[in-house]
Order: sequence, then structure tokens, then C-alpha cells
Amino acid sequence: MRRINVGIIGAGRIGLLHANNIIKSNLLSLEAIADINIDHLLEGGWQERVAMITTDVNDILNNPDISAVFICSSTNTHVEYIERAAIAGKHIFCEKPISFNVKETKEVLEIVKEKGVKFQSGFNRRYDVHFRKLFESVRENKIGEPHIVKISSRDPSPPTENYVKHSGGLFMDMTIHDFDMARYLMNSEIIEVSAKAANLVDPMFLKLSDVDTAIITLTFENGALAVIDNSRQAVYGYDQRIEVFGSGGVVSVDNELQSNLQISTNKGTTLDNPKYFFLERYREAYEEEINCFARSLLDNLPISCTGEDGYKAELLAHAANLSFQQNRAVKLSELEKLESNTRVL
Amino acid sequence: MRRINVGIIGAGRIGLLHANNIIKSNLLSLEAIADINIDHLLEGGWQERVAMITTDVNDILNNPDISAVFICSSTNTHVEYIERAAIAGKHIFCEKPISFNVKETKEVLEIVKEKGVKFQSGFNRRYDVHFRKLFESVRENKIGEPHIVKISSRDPSPPTENYVKHSGGLFMDMTIHDFDMARYLMNSEIIEVSAKAANLVDPMFLKLSDVDTAIITLTFENGALAVIDNSRQAVYGYDQRIEVFGSGGVVSVDNELQSNLQISTNKGTTLDNPKYFFLERYREAYEEEINCFARSLLDNLPISCTGEDGYKAELLAHAANLSFQQNRAVKLSELEKLESNTRVL
Amino acid sequence: MRRINVGIIGAGRIGLLHANNIIKSNLLSLEAIADINIDHLLEGGWQERVAMITTDVNDILNNPDISAVFICSSTNTHVEYIERAAIAGKHIFCEKPISFNVKETKEVLEIVKEKGVKFQSGFNRRYDVHFRKLFESVRENKIGEPHIVKISSRDPSPPTENYVKHSGGLFMDMTIHDFDMARYLMNSEIIEVSAKAANLVDPMFLKLSDVDTAIITLTFENGALAVIDNSRQAVYGYDQRIEVFGSGGVVSVDNELQSNLQISTNKGTTLDNPKYFFLERYREAYEEEINCFARSLLDNLPISCTGEDGYKAELLAHAANLSFQQNRAVKLSELEKLESNTRVL
Amino acid sequence: MRRINVGIIGAGRIGLLHANNIIKSNLLSLEAIADINIDHLLEGGWQERVAMITTDVNDILNNPDISAVFICSSTNTHVEYIERAAIAGKHIFCEKPISFNVKETKEVLEIVKEKGVKFQSGFNRRYDVHFRKLFESVRENKIGEPHIVKISSRDPSPPTENYVKHSGGLFMDMTIHDFDMARYLMNSEIIEVSAKAANLVDPMFLKLSDVDTAIITLTFENGALAVIDNSRQAVYGYDQRIEVFGSGGVVSVDNELQSNLQISTNKGTTLDNPKYFFLERYREAYEEEINCFARSLLDNLPISCTGEDGYKAELLAHAANLSFQQNRAVKLSELEKLESNTRVL
Repeated sequence: MRRINVGIIGAGRIGLLHANNIIKSNLLSLEAIADINIDHLLEGGWQERVAMITTDVNDILNNPDISAVFICSSTNTHVEYIERAAIAGKHIFCEKPISFNVKETKEVLEIVKEKGVKFQSGFNRRYDVHFRKLFESVRENKIGEPHIVKISSRDPSPPTENYVKHSGGLFMDMTIHDFDMARYLMNSEIIEVSAKAANLVDPMFLKLSDVDTAIITLTFENGALAVIDNSRQAVYGYDQRIEVFGSGGVVSVDNELQSNLQISTNKGTTLDNPKYFFLERYREAYEEEINCFARSLLDNLPISCTGEDGYKAELLAHAANLSFQQNRAVKLSELEKLESNTRVL
Repeated sequence: MRRINVGIIGAGRIGLLHANNIIKSNLLSLEAIADINIDHLLEGGWQERVAMITTDVNDILNNPDISAVFICSSTNTHVEYIERAAIAGKHIFCEKPISFNVKETKEVLEIVKEKGVKFQSGFNRRYDVHFRKLFESVRENKIGEPHIVKISSRDPSPPTENYVKHSGGLFMDMTIHDFDMARYLMNSEIIEVSAKAANLVDPMFLKLSDVDTAIITLTFENGALAVIDNSRQAVYGYDQRIEVFGSGGVVSVDNELQSNLQISTNKGTTLDNPKYFFLERYREAYEEEINCFARSLLDNLPISCTGEDGYKAELLAHAANLSFQQNRAVKLSELEKLESNTRVL
Repeated sequence: MRRINVGIIGAGRIGLLHANNIIKSNLLSLEAIADINIDHLLEGGWQERVAMITTDVNDILNNPDISAVFICSSTNTHVEYIERAAIAGKHIFCEKPISFNVKETKEVLEIVKEKGVKFQSGFNRRYDVHFRKLFESVRENKIGEPHIVKISSRDPSPPTENYVKHSGGLFMDMTIHDFDMARYLMNSEIIEVSAKAANLVDPMFLKLSDVDTAIITLTFENGALAVIDNSRQAVYGYDQRIEVFGSGGVVSVDNELQSNLQISTNKGTTLDNPKYFFLERYREAYEEEINCFARSLLDNLPISCTGEDGYKAELLAHAANLSFQQNRAVKLSELEKLESNTRVL
Repeated sequence: MRRINVGIIGAGRIGLLHANNIIKSNLLSLEAIADINIDHLLEGGWQERVAMITTDVNDILNNPDISAVFICSSTNTHVEYIERAAIAGKHIFCEKPISFNVKETKEVLEIVKEKGVKFQSGFNRRYDVHFRKLFESVRENKIGEPHIVKISSRDPSPPTENYVKHSGGLFMDMTIHDFDMARYLMNSEIIEVSAKAANLVDPMFLKLSDVDTAIITLTFENGALAVIDNSRQAVYGYDQRIEVFGSGGVVSVDNELQSNLQISTNKGTTLDNPKYFFLERYREAYEEEINCFARSLLDNLPISCTGEDGYKAELLAHAANLSFQQNRAVKLSELEKLESNTRVL
């Protein structure tokens, strides 16, 4: 069986998640992991599972046996690694967001294009079996013309202060997944964003000039509307529900529960909580995501979630920030204009 | 609008339930209530709602303006009142069971037939909107040929000792509804009954030679099977579920809950309990039951739940008793033979 | 039993709904119905059910035996009848909206206050058993501090062109119920409204300068957020769902279905549709609404849904209109200022 | 990490399922596969995944590096391989049933005991996450004293005629899982079995003196009751539901669906079908089953599903056969007596 030989850049939580999935995959072969610090890898015995553990990314980029890289390092390093990988002729899988600066994102995607390597953005939820079926139902016209997309996306508990500090804010860190999902499901571009947000969960967010609760309304080119609601803390577990309402009906996906158990007593009937967080909820989606990347490379198929998709989602996150700060609807066309004039959004 | 003028014989809980529903109905008019004791009626102000409150059943039977009677007195008086009402030319609605003695039931139904009056048995569940739709789904071949009927029927809490003493036992008092439902849904006669039962809820049942928990298996003429499970105490509320499994699928009805409320916390998601008991669960079915009776009289339509249906359900209750006592499968044909020889089952 | 004697002004669909419920109620007595056209009442035999059928509202207002009126006439007559009824010393139940002009609404409510009569606004959903339990769950702190209220409110099919023409538009006709519900559940005033809307269902709405699809975001004084989504056409039936998310969990109410039937075949499992429209869905809520009004009068209890509540919901509808027309967030304080300067909004 | 080195005897569908799971497991190492025919293994490239592919079971039994065997060959060879493996000092995992002859089963388990090797029976459903939680709920007294166990267990489609011929019949092939589950959940021994069965799905079963539809009632030593219903053909998918009803409530597990998708149109709301069959439904349970076996060996823990459990389930299958053939309740004590006198049941 042909496999894609890959190297991973960045061995944090998400990097190691991909590492494990690559090892399990029949389509990929993990040849190397690079990180600035490899102590935790050696302690974890990764040298027994991967041929090369290195602190030098060049060991991956210069390795002719490696045809693709997974960029899982911190966001502020993405652009540099993408550029170097593209120049080295490696196909690229890059975690979201590509960068916090849409102008830089756009520029580096230009380089990717020039170099002719393939690039996949890491929006894992597109590969979830439930949302995939929802997507297909909409495409197959099961609910007619879509009118309203509704996305509830709530984390089970807030991240650490240090994480929040480097997260790019709620819209860039959390809502970015929902922006991508809205575009993916509607198959039409978003032309306007209106964001309302609040600090209701933890004063830490306010301290960091961030928010923890938000409702974002989107207007699509085709006239349809979408609404996303976010919270950093749903005490009952990771809340990930989507509904697409249309002229012929409505299709929805409810949460995956930890089990199907139901207990009825004189106090009512109790069901299990949703799966705790993304590692549990999207376990299989993460596997499918990288296999999909591998199949695109092996069979020269179109990439299922492109750099353009990553760029668009970032632009929407910026629009949401602007909308929230100025308490007004923001047109995407404004940002695109702005972007051509100035580097800093 | 034409209405059926009716009198009620027996003003206990179920009699007054029917009284209230008759008053609300557009198809029936309540002319009289008879009971051996009418103090509770006078205290409740029923004289303001009904033209006649009497201790003499003849006041109803001799009243030419009354065309139908509701027999809601205690079971041991049913046969006598049915006979007298039939002779008086009144149509009859009779609560279940017709009697505790199937031979007497059969004989009095012969008289009803001779006198040409209409007779409806009080199996209220046939008129429940959910079970009615289930019935129709089976008839409309939505699940192909039925193979297995499953009925869960559990009361929320045991009746009083005095009630149990005069109830005829679990099979005659509770399961009789399920026997009727099984026949109704399957549209085939039951040829064999196997009952397992136990005393697990309250020693009071054992003291009265009764049981409180049972599983009854039925074999139909058409080869299909059914299973009923009963308990006198489901602490979470009245549990009334039915499922019909067939060659083309399965159709089922789950409990009606007290509300659609769902509360999710870190302890799970809690739904409301089922409606508490038959008064809540079958409120609308009781209304439909008597309107259906009225329509049968007004438009000379076939009775929706006949005396024969009442008789068959009683026979099944006897079969279940015999099966449990002798720990063996009992064929209905045995009972029918037995019945022709002896008065006491 | 004491009863409140009432007269109904306006015998259209909603007027006759109340008439039937008043007749069924133990707490109210229907003494008279007035309408400019009474032919349909006479044809329907209402003279047999009500002592007086009249074309002259004064027959009700001057009747000393009548202590309360139900104003169910067309919206443009409400203010006049409220004023006349208040002067006549009658308690008032008035259908929503009180008027299309919030200034007039405010003025007439002043008169009501001066005359010391009680006034209930007709927001029937507050009396729905499911939403009532949801309300109580929030009050009883079952989900902690509320952060996000989500309301889906979609009609099964668009009204007639003539209805739409006199409806006051989507926000005043449909969303007004949701505005009231949001305030009721959150127990905090709304300070800002942002409305997005579209014409996606039927070009008729555009022709009448109306919309048929909308997403409205609300900001509360206490910092919480709400979002409402509306559509004039949910082909699967009346979609009425609410969710309140808070610091300790989430509580929600899903649709009432026509039955609990489930059919599983090789094509999947099919459940029944939601109840068709408000007459079916809120049947019991309409009964409870008027009984609640009666109890407030009989026992001199606070009114459960006041004139102030009606006024606030109208103000929100106006804010939504303004927000949609100007594509910006509208603060309620703007409208209150505006209102004090000019009669026309 | 310590691992258990294992060899597999029998490389049919279930043998290869275990082979794949052993390869994925961190606790087991697959050293060899033996089968009388190894062509399909070589064609499938298994020689690249396993050090030894052999037609001689002795290559496994004589290999000192192998400490455990998985017996996955056809049922009529189990007893021989168990005996040889026990004598060779190998721990044993054996697929269900151990044999079709309970006397032989008992005898070979005696040998296992004498030789001091560990033995696990292959009842995979005990390791399902949902049923495991149900089991724990019962143990943790969440529903009080159990009164009724209900198991629905229906295959999506009948096996081939050849499979049925060597299956041991419905009770031995299908119900055996449910017998084990009933004992496991109730934690009390079954003392009596009553089986009703029919041929409703396919005449092939009748031709082979088998049945395809059954309802089996069980009585436990502690007085509780259980009922199992089986069908060889549930067209909507593998139907695997369990409910335990007790003095304090009821706990249940419903089917795992293929996805959480819900589509509502004017024809109702449609959910996905259950997962198709045991490979999909119990995918994770099969993984947990062998890891549990490995942990028992590595840490010298009690076996989670013993040879005794396998024997008891077989005895129940025989009792069900006898009950069905003779149309009577069969006490387990009869069989145990019978068994001590004669070899053929």
C-alpha cells in the first residue's frame, strides 16, 4: 500500500494527537517529529515509534523521503514554516488559524500556490460523520433552499489564562471553526458580520480584553442568514449542535452523548452528558481529516479544506472583532479594502 | 345538534369521570345519575349539573327520554344492571371487566344480543391518539406482517388493600387492558397464554393471594407472539409503552411526559417523568371513548369495542391466572371447553 | 362558585377561541359578544350559548353585570375600546399588540391606570405548561445565572396577503411574542436590538415591504444576550423551541409533536411532525391564560402579563424595525427619547 | 510495556477481527495465526503483519514465547483445542459457545481448572460501554432492587443457510448472548426458562428445524423475571436494547444510531437507522474485551467472563430448546440432573 511520508512540526497537544493518528493510519507514515523542546517526547518514548525526533525543522524539510509536513506549532510561527515548507516542496497540513494577520496569511498562501504544493487547513469538524451527513443532506436538497444556519458551539470550561493570552481572542480561537462550518454548509460567501459579545463567565477574559460569550449573525451572498452562539463554559460538556433550516424543512445534528444510558426515578429521567471536549467529540473526525489529506495527495484529488478556506475564516474572525468593538455590522468588503492598504488590522 | 341522552349507574371515580366528560361532549347529554349513596354527589353540587340524582336505578331504566346507560358500578353488579338495561331497551356502555365470571359474561351478552341494544366495553386505551395511530400504522402495513407485540404496562403505585381485595387480581384488573390491546393491534385471536408472576413490590399482594409483577407471553392464531410486562409500582410514573415489530420494521409509542422540559447540568440531562396515572395519561382517550360510543348510536355505526371484546379479554385474564397457578402454557380452547361444563372457573 | 362576567368585543378567530374557552371555564361567564358584523355568530348558533349578541359595544360597556371585557377586535380599534372600557370601569383583557403606535399605547395605559381597572396583555405563550416550567427552572436557579436565551419561532405557513397587509409587519405580528418571552424568561430589561431580516419565503412579503425571515439579537441590562429566529414558513409545522443557557447549565423546551409514534424501517426512524399551529400548540395555554386573568380579578392578585409588558414588547418590535431598516444596533433609550418628541415612530 | 504474546486458532471472520484488534492493542502482541486453510491469509498479506502463519496448531501450542491462545475455529473443534491448549499451559480466550454439548463443556472446563490456565468466554456485549454503564447503575443501586430485565436482540438479516445449519439453532447461536447478559445484569442465577418461538421470517429456518422469532421468559433465584425477544430480521438494523426495571426506577440503553442526523419535512422527522450489525455496533466492545483479557493475565486479576459463564449460557440455550420443543417451563435443575446421567441432551 502506498503511504505518504510525513513530518510533524510542533509536538504539543494537537501535534501529538495527529502523530498518534498518523501511526494508526494506513495512508500515512510518520517519519519525523520536530520541536524546539523534545524532552517530553523522549520521556514519552516517542523515539521508539518515530525514526527521527529532532529540534531542527530542517531535518524534516531537507529530508527527500518526506513529502508532507503537519504544521502544529504555535500560531505565530505558522507563516514562517509554511513558507519554508512550500519552498522545500513539501505538501502542507496546517492547524488553524494560519496566522493572526490576514494579510500575511494571504501572502503566504500566494507562495504556496506558486510553489505548487498542496495545502490543507485544519478545520476538523468538516470531517465529523454527523456534520458530514448534514452537509450532504443540504447538498442533496433534502431541505430545499437553505434560509437559516444555526450553530451552537460552547466549550466545557475556559482555557488557562496563558492560553487565552495567545489565542487571538474568542472569535479567532473558537468562532473560527463555526465561521468555517457556516461557509461550508451554506456553500455561499458571507458578506456581513454582526457580533454581540459579553464577559459573563470569568473576569480573566475582561482582564485580557477578551470575551467569553457571543452571538454572531452572518449574512450570505445568497440572502440567507446564520447565527452562531458561543460560550467558554458549558458545565454540562462540549455543546456542538448545528441546524440548517430551509424552504423544504430543517436538518440538525444534536450532541454525541457519553452513553445512551437513561435512568428514570421519581426525580425524572436522566441522560448522560455530551462527550467532554474536542478530543472525545472529534476523535474520529481527526482521523478522517488526515486520511482525507492523504487521499488528496495519493490520488491527486482536490483538497477538502483549502488555504482559501482558512483565510476566509480568519477574515470573518477579524470582521467579528471589528463588529464587536464598534458595535455595528461589518461588511467583508470593507476588510478586503482595508487589507490592501495596511498590514495591521 | 342531536345528542344521546344518558344516565350513569354508579358514581365512583370512574363514573364521575364519565359524568364530567359527558357534560363537556356535544354528542351526549347527561340526564341522570344513580348510586346507592348520593351524599357525595349532593355535597359536590351535582344536582346543579344533572336533572336527576337518584338512589333508584329504575328512575333511569324507566325513563323513556334516556336511551343509553353507563354502567360504572362495582364489578359484581355489572351483570344484573346489563340485563335490566337490555330488557329496558337501553344501549349500554359498561366499564371493564363485565364480570369476574366468563360464563355469566357470555350469558348476559346473549341477552344483550337478543334485546338488540348496542353494547360498548370500556377499554379506554383503544381511543388514545398515540395507540390509535399505532393501530393504523399496523393496519396500513407500515411495518409489514406483525411478528411481535410488546406491551409495558406499569402502574405508578399500588392500589389500597381494599381495592386489591375486590379487583379480581392483577391479570383481571390490570393486564386485561393489555390483553385487549394485544388483540386489537394484532387483529388475530390469541390461542395460548403463558404467565410468570411474582410478589416483589408489596407483601400485601401475597397476603391477598395476588401478585404485583408479571410477564405474560401470548401466541396468536396467525403464528405471531406477544409479551406483556406488568408491575404495580413504577416509581417514575405510569409506564405505558407499546411496540409492534414486523417483517418491514417496527412501530412504537413511548410515554407521554409531564412536559418537554430538559435541564442539562454537570450531572447529566434530566427530562420530566411520565404523566402520573391513567386520569392524566388517558384524559383525552376517555373523552374520545364516549364520543365514539355516541357516534355509533347516532349514526348506527359498528361499536368500536364490543361485548365480545370484553369477553375475550376476561377469558385471557382467566387463562393467565390458570397458567400462573399451574406453571404451564394454557390454551384458550381448554377454557372454552371448561366453560361449557362448569360455572366456576 | 364566584365567576367573572365578561363580554367579548370582536368575534373573529381569536375572539371565538376565547368565547369557547370562557364557556368551558369555571371562573368566567360569557354574558355578551359584540361585533360590527354578527351574521356569522347567528349562523353558528351562538345566540344559544350567549345571552347577548350585539353590534353595539355600548351594550357591553353599559351593562352593570359585566365586570370585564375581552378586546379581540382588529388592532387599529384597540386603543379606542380600551379607553371606553376603562372609563366604563371594566377590567380589560386585550389581544396583542395593544396598538401599532407605542405613544398611543402608552397614553391609553395611563388612562387604564387612572381609572384603576386591571389590564392583561394577551401573550398566551407565558401560560404554556412547558414554557412555564422553563420559566420556573430559571427562577429556581436550576441553571445558575442566565447568559443566553435562544428562541426559535417559525410559523407553518404564511398568512394571507390581506392579513400581512394589516399585521404591522413580521416584528410586530410574530416576533412580538418572542420579545415578550425573552423579557419574561430573563427578568431583565432589553437595552439594545439588532435585527437582520430577509425575504426568502414568498415575494408577497417584499411587495408589502415586509420580510419573512429574521434573526434578532438582544442585549439585556444585566449583560446577557438573546437571539430569536423567525420564519413565516416551516413546512414541518409550528416550530416553537426555547433554550436558556446559563452559568450552571442549560434548560430547553422542544416542540410538542402530534403523537409519540415512531416508525423504523430500512429508511430510518420517522417521528410525527410538531402540532400544526398555535390553535393546536397553545390550546391549553389559551385556557390557562383566561383563567389566570379571572383569578387575578377574583382574588385581587397581580396581573400575570401587564399593559407595561405589552408596551415593552411593542417598543421592541419598533426597535427591530428601525434596526433592520438602518442596518444598525438600536438602543431602546433612543426610542424612548424619540417617543417623547414625536407621535409617529 | 509488557505485552501478552498470543496465537490465534481459526482465521475466519471473528478470528481476523480479533487479529486486527490484537495488532492495535498495547497489551497484546500477535505472534501467530493457525488455520487449516491459510490461502486467504497469504492473499490478504497477513504474513507482513504476523511473524507466523501456519496450518499446524502445534506451531502455536509448542511455542514457548506464546502464553495465550484465541480459539476462533468452528464450534465443533473448540473442546479439542481447549484441552490441548490447557495441557500446553496456554491461557485461553474462546469464542462462544464453548461447545454444543454441555457435558463436554463441563468436562473440558474441569481440565482447564486442573491445568491452572486462565479462560475467558467470548461474550463481547459485556464490554460495550453502554451496557457496562447499565450494569454499573444496577450494581450501584440506582434503580433499587431489580424486578424485570428486558432484552430486545434482533439481527438485521438472516445468516446463510449453511451458517444456520451449523449454528446450533437460534437459542444457542443468538439468544446465548442474551442469556449471558441477563445473568450478568441480574447477578442471580436463572432457575427456569420458558421459550415461545416461531418461524415467521424465512421458511429456510423451518426446513432446518430451526426458528427465527422467539420470546423467552426467565425466572431468577431471587424471584425476579426477565424476558428476551429475538428475531433474525429487523430490517431497520441491529436492534440491541436492554432495560432493567426495579423498585426504585428503570435504567435502559437504546440503540446506537449511525448518526445523530434529524431531518424534518412535511412528512415528519427522520432519524438514522441503528448501526448495521455487530461489527459496527460492538467495534469498541471487541477491543475492550481482549484488553480486559490481557489485563487479567498481566495483573493476575479475575477473569471478567469465565468458563463457568460460558457453560451457564449454554445450559440456558439447551433449556430454551427443550422448553420450546415440549411447550413447557423447564427448570435448570432438570438439566443438571439429566446431564449427570447422559451425554446427549
